[in-house]
Amino acid sequence: MLRQITASTQVCAIIKDPVEHSLSPQIHNAAFQSLNLDMVYTAFHVRSGRLCEAIMGVRALGVRGLSVTIPHKVDILSELDELDSVSRHVHSVNTVVNDGGSLKGYTSDGYGALRALSAADVSLAGASIVVIGSGGAARAICFTLATVEPFPKVAILGIDEREGQDLRRDLCEATGLPVTFETLQDDKLQIALESASLVIQATPVGMSPKEGKSPIPSYMLREDLAVFDIVYTPLETRLLKEASGVGAKTISGLGMFVHQAAAQFELWTGRKAPVDVMTAAVEKSLAP
Amino acid sequence: MLRQITASTQVCAIIKDPVEHSLSPQIHNAAFQSLNLDMVYTAFHVRSGRLCEAIMGVRALGVRGLSVTIPHKVDILSELDELDSVSRHVHSVNTVVNDGGSLKGYTSDGYGALRALSAADVSLAGASIVVIGSGGAARAICFTLATVEPFPKVAILGIDEREGQDLRRDLCEATGLPVTFETLQDDKLQIALESASLVIQATPVGMSPKEGKSPIPSYMLREDLAVFDIVYTPLETRLLKEASGVGAKTISGLGMFVHQAAAQFELWTGRKAPVDVMTAAVEKSLAP
Repeated sequence: MLRQITASTQVCAIIKDPVEHSLSPQIHNAAFQSLNLDMVYTAFHVRSGRLCEAIMGVRALGVRGLSVTIPHKVDILSELDELDSVSRHVHSVNTVVNDGGSLKGYTSDGYGALRALSAADVSLAGASIVVIGSGGAARAICFTLATVEPFPKVAILGIDEREGQDLRRDLCEATGLPVTFETLQDDKLQIALESASLVIQATPVGMSPKEGKSPIPSYMLREDLAVFDIVYTPLETRLLKEASGVGAKTISGLGMFVHQAAAQFELWTGRKAPVDVMTAAVEKSLAP
Repeated sequence: MLRQITASTQVCAIIKDPVEHSLSPQIHNAAFQSLNLDMVYTAFHVRSGRLCEAIMGVRALGVRGLSVTIPHKVDILSELDELDSVSRHVHSVNTVVNDGGSLKGYTSDGYGALRALSAADVSLAGASIVVIGSGGAARAICFTLATVEPFPKVAILGIDEREGQDLRRDLCEATGLPVTFETLQDDKLQIALESASLVIQATPVGMSPKEGKSPIPSYMLREDLAVFDIVYTPLETRLLKEASGVGAKTISGLGMFVHQAAAQFELWTGRKAPVDVMTAAVEKSLAP
C-alpha cells in the first residue's frame, strides 16, 4: 500500500520493451513506502525508435529517476549529459538520475553483485575469482570488481572469443586489474576453478530457455568454492542446486537484483535503501 | 490507499506550472482505486517553453491521459492530433486521451458545469441563463450550453467588451445559440437577471485575491434564481452566502471541479465515473 499521491509526489520509472514482466515497480514502491518518501515508481513501455523522445519527455516532465533496461541500455548513452566511470567502461547504463534537467547515467548491476556477495559474507579483497561469461553483465561486474582493494585476481571464461578478449583488454587498460580470458572448455575451466575461491556465473544459462542447464560440470564444484549465479528465475538454478549439494556457499541472482535496485534507490533519494523491505517485496512478487 | 503499481499499470497525469496545489491526483487515484482499475495518476511540473518536449514524451512513454491546465491549455492545441468540437470552439484543451500514440484533446470544464447543475436538479433546457464573465471558463460553459436542447437563452455580461463581443459572435456563428453581450454594469445586470432562472458566475471574483467580493449586488438575488459559482476556494463565496441568505438554490464550483474530473475519467477509462468517491476525495483534501 502506498501513501497518497499528491501534486508534489516525485515520479521514478522503468523504461523497457516489453515492459510487462518487470518487478521494479513493486520493489521500489515498497522502498519509498517504507521510508515514507513522497515518491512513486511506474513503468513506461518505450519502443526502440522512441528513446530520444522519451528522454526529452523525462526532462520536460521532471521524472526524477529511471531504471533502464532492454533494449535501451546502450542507446541511452548518447542521450545523457554525464556518465559515471563504470558506465563509461561498460558502455551501458541501467540507472538515470535527473537533477533539474541534467541527466547522469550509472550502472548499478555490478554494485548489485558486489553488495550481494558482501551481504553473503563473501570476501572479495585479493580473492581469486572465476567469471563465466563476457557479455554486458560480466562486463559490469568485472569493472566494478576493479574498484575493490586490493584487486581480486579475475579469470574470465566465455564462449565468445572476441567479446572476451575485448573485455580482458579493456579491463587491463582501464584498471590494471590482473585478468585473463580463456574460452569456456572443461579443461580450462577446471584449471581456473582449482585456484579460485569464488565463481560468478554471468550468463543466461540456467534460465529459460536454458533452464535445467549449468555451465559448470558438477564434479568441479567443491565445498570451499562460493558460487554466485546472476540468474534469479528460477531462484535455484541447476548450478546452485549442485553447488548446494556439495556444501558450497551459494548466492542467487535475487540478491544482485535487489542490491542493484537498492543502489538505484540511493542515487535517486540520497537515503540508505531498506534492503530487507525490498527483498521481501521481490519474494512476495515471485511467490507462486 | 492504492492497489499495487506493477509493470502493467497505466499512467495518467496532470501537467501544470506551478504544480503544487492541484487536487487532481487525489481525486483521480480515488476513482481508479474505487473501480479497482490498474491505473495511477501523477503530477508533472512542465514549464511553458517545455510543452513540446513534454508531449513528445507523453507519446513515447505511453502516458494514457493528461489533465492540462495553466499555462498549457491553449499552447497544447498545436501539439495534438485531433480536437473535439467544444475544444475547437473554446480554443483550449483541459483533457488529452492517448490512443496508441494518437492524442485527442477535449474540454471537460463545460461538461463539468452542466453535470454539476444537472446533479443539483437545475433545468437547462430552454432556460434563461445569465453568464457573468467572458474568459476561458465562460467560453467553455457557453459552448457546452449550446449542446442543450432546446437551446437555453444566454445573456453574457462581462468587463472586457472585446472579449465578450468575440464570444457572442463566435457562439452565434457556430451554434445559432440566442445570446447577447452587455458590459457588466448594475443596471444592465439587473435587467438581465429579472428574466433569468439561473446565473453562472464564471470569473475569479470571490477567490483570492478577490475573496470576499461578489460581482452581483445582493439586492438582485431572489429565492427563485439558482446561483452557480465556478469558484470553489473558498467553498462558499460571498455570492453563494448571500444567495443562500435569500433562500436561493446555490451550486458551488466544487461540483464543477468534480464533474469535469469525472468526464476526464470517463474519457480515459471508458467507465462510468464514481462521482461520490471523487467528491469525498476532494472534500477530504480540502478539509482544514
